[in-house]
Amino acid sequence: MNASEFRRRGKEMVDYVADYLEGIEGRPVYPDVEPGYLRPLIPTAAPQEPEAFEDIINDIEKIIMPGVTHWHSPYFFAYFPTASSYPAMLADMLCGAIGCIGFSWAASPACTELETVMMDWLGKMLQLPEAFLAGKAGEGGGVIQGSASEATLVALLAARTKVIRQLQARTPELTQAAIMEKLVAYSSDQVVATLGTTSCCSFDNLLEVGPICKKEDMWLHIDAAYAGSAFICPEFRHLLNGVEFADSFNFNPHKWLLVNFDCSAMWVKKRTDLTGAFKLDPVYLKHSHQDSGLITDYRHWQIPLGRRFRSLKMWFVFRMYGVKGLQAYIRKHIHLAHKFESLVRQDSRFEICAEVTLGLVCFRLKGSNQLNEALLQRINSAKKIHLVPCHLRDKIVLRFAVCARTVESAHVQFAWEHIKELAGDVLRVEKE
Amino acid sequence: MNASEFRRRGKEMVDYVADYLEGIEGRPVYPDVEPGYLRPLIPTAAPQEPEAFEDIINDIEKIIMPGVTHWHSPYFFAYFPTASSYPAMLADMLCGAIGCIGFSWAASPACTELETVMMDWLGKMLQLPEAFLAGKAGEGGGVIQGSASEATLVALLAARTKVIRQLQARTPELTQAAIMEKLVAYSSDQVVATLGTTSCCSFDNLLEVGPICKKEDMWLHIDAAYAGSAFICPEFRHLLNGVEFADSFNFNPHKWLLVNFDCSAMWVKKRTDLTGAFKLDPVYLKHSHQDSGLITDYRHWQIPLGRRFRSLKMWFVFRMYGVKGLQAYIRKHIHLAHKFESLVRQDSRFEICAEVTLGLVCFRLKGSNQLNEALLQRINSAKKIHLVPCHLRDKIVLRFAVCARTVESAHVQFAWEHIKELAGDVLRVEKE
Repeated sequence: MNASEFRRRGKEMVDYVADYLEGIEGRPVYPDVEPGYLRPLIPTAAPQEPEAFEDIINDIEKIIMPGVTHWHSPYFFAYFPTASSYPAMLADMLCGAIGCIGFSWAASPACTELETVMMDWLGKMLQLPEAFLAGKAGEGGGVIQGSASEATLVALLAARTKVIRQLQARTPELTQAAIMEKLVAYSSDQVVATLGTTSCCSFDNLLEVGPICKKEDMWLHIDAAYAGSAFICPEFRHLLNGVEFADSFNFNPHKWLLVNFDCSAMWVKKRTDLTGAFKLDPVYLKHSHQDSGLITDYRHWQIPLGRRFRSLKMWFVFRMYGVKGLQAYIRKHIHLAHKFESLVRQDSRFEICAEVTLGLVCFRLKGSNQLNEALLQRINSAKKIHLVPCHLRDKIVLRFAVCARTVESAHVQFAWEHIKELAGDVLRVEKE
Repeated sequence: MNASEFRRRGKEMVDYVADYLEGIEGRPVYPDVEPGYLRPLIPTAAPQEPEAFEDIINDIEKIIMPGVTHWHSPYFFAYFPTASSYPAMLADMLCGAIGCIGFSWAASPACTELETVMMDWLGKMLQLPEAFLAGKAGEGGGVIQGSASEATLVALLAARTKVIRQLQARTPELTQAAIMEKLVAYSSDQVVATLGTTSCCSFDNLLEVGPICKKEDMWLHIDAAYAGSAFICPEFRHLLNGVEFADSFNFNPHKWLLVNFDCSAMWVKKRTDLTGAFKLDPVYLKHSHQDSGLITDYRHWQIPLGRRFRSLKMWFVFRMYGVKGLQAYIRKHIHLAHKFESLVRQDSRFEICAEVTLGLVCFRLKGSNQLNEALLQRINSAKKIHLVPCHLRDKIVLRFAVCARTVESAHVQFAWEHIKELAGDVLRVEKE
């Protein structure tokens, strides 16, 4: 395919994408396929000769779409949201074309520098303490990781390296193995200090945890994967109070801040804590500026060597929405969650199981777990909406997460009417 | 931005991308900026109000492009290639629109199933032993990781878990800590068994290493990050002989097989070795099919929880190029490397420093390291071509890697004339 065919096919694909997203409401949110559905539909090996683009695009509707769970349908209320917006998609097209691998400053200076500045922009939106920002001469700074799991792993490895070096400096006769054996990583039942748990979006109290970590000279990593986006709204910023005690902090703009996956934002107060743990300097990656102290080589901040130009997505989204647009988006989702909560509260057959702080409502039918499993099963079999359960203590609870960019009050209303109707069926069967 | 504005802007972006790639030869391959160039060019914080798309697209040429190292310029001969093709870019647009997170089969069945089948297609192209393929009922199978580093880490953790369980089964009184203390990971100076090293693209002899690992019951992981793509050509497949001894194998189609970053292909002979090490089963990720044995939940195969629909890129590229097209592409690059090699060999001032097997030529001026550093410095200051050095034993060597999809014989000829001219200058200065 040459550039001129790409011009034609690319524009067709733009229309396909727009058609898909405009029409997504008309597709069943959850697919009606059995495991193994796809293999018989396609050849057992790659073709020897090239095929035409028409054949491929036709296969999208025939083979792919029947097996897609439509995460951006306004009837999708499962898991947590994954972000999607047109500005982010435009930026991703550009990212693919530039196609640079930004492991060092020299490998593409713009890729590194835009990332550092975008992480400062985002840090300021969250009112992060100055110590987390790179600025022109700060000791801290931000980096885009692929996922919160990677950010947590990076924090853990950096913390381990730091404490090993401290102990070896104090007690040179200690071997690394002897130290490693004694190290303890304290975690909650969600692994690290968490703002907005997956099950019910609860919050650890950083103002309690933070001072203890400080006193004991322990590395504190805070994960606010889903909830973090809400902290750009002043009225939710208090949930982040205590972040000043942390050594590292991360959340996922790719969940709720309209920046398509992957974009997990991580900040540290001392960038040397990361570069000290991950530094990798073969001669083929050296460049003339690296020892100047002026530049950032992001390969020392992460597990993989390679990295895409992901900050373009942040730049496009932040500029095309503006901070006010992003705040309005977060507030709309939280408003819809409260609307759903109030509908549930009006029906005495149901109970709300956790405080509704952001965009997640945990609810259940009063009664047995079996009853709630039956309700969930009916909901997901009907495929009109999609949601998933969780355990809170010993109870099976239904999670209603406001997810899609295009979800409106009418969709929430529809979802509730549908749930009520199925609940009626379940309760009738139980009585019989 | 709504769908109708996206239709318009998306098509403009398609043209921008095509213009950029068609005109890339006219841009200096390496940017002329100093560290910190970007920060003064943009505001210190995100705008409160939304900005127009025109302002952003104009800033691409003003702010971003001056700082880009153009990896897809036909004058880029640095590092190793990173893949780029129009079919992969089209697939990425679709991937962004579907925007599903494929951590489990239920989270988007098509995302999981296409990946499994594409990894079988690719495995067959490489003539991998049947044991690595998933097929309809195999014990092995493939997964797309983000990078070779992640694949290596996953293999290492899986190997560790496996051996700990084996030893605990044999000697139940051993604690996990006691076992961990005794574990040894053998590695070469490139970490693991490597086919195609970064410095000079040398190859470990798997037919020697493999039987030793087998005899000692050790996990063998093979990394062919760059070279792996060449094994789709029958004349290079012998370099992979011995892979039958491996437990896991990976290479990066995102380097040399026209599938844009990220797409690191990893296969294992026993998928239960991975799922045993990484299994994560909170109730909100459970689904009705998961215990049927019929399905794959890829979250158990990797470090991150989230994952994009990356197999679409493989599907588009394999079908639009066909196996023959991909083979022709690999052969063209290798042919160009040999052409460069023969040009170097004709000039008695230079020497070739390592056997040229694939697309990399390691060469140097006969003489001191200082001389070669001076030459490299002139090459990269002139910014007409871009390449990086490496150390082979104690010598500074220049790496000429055939990288761009659009590189032709004329570009290689130009690069050589340019290098010869600068070498003349360096040698003259030395004489004076």
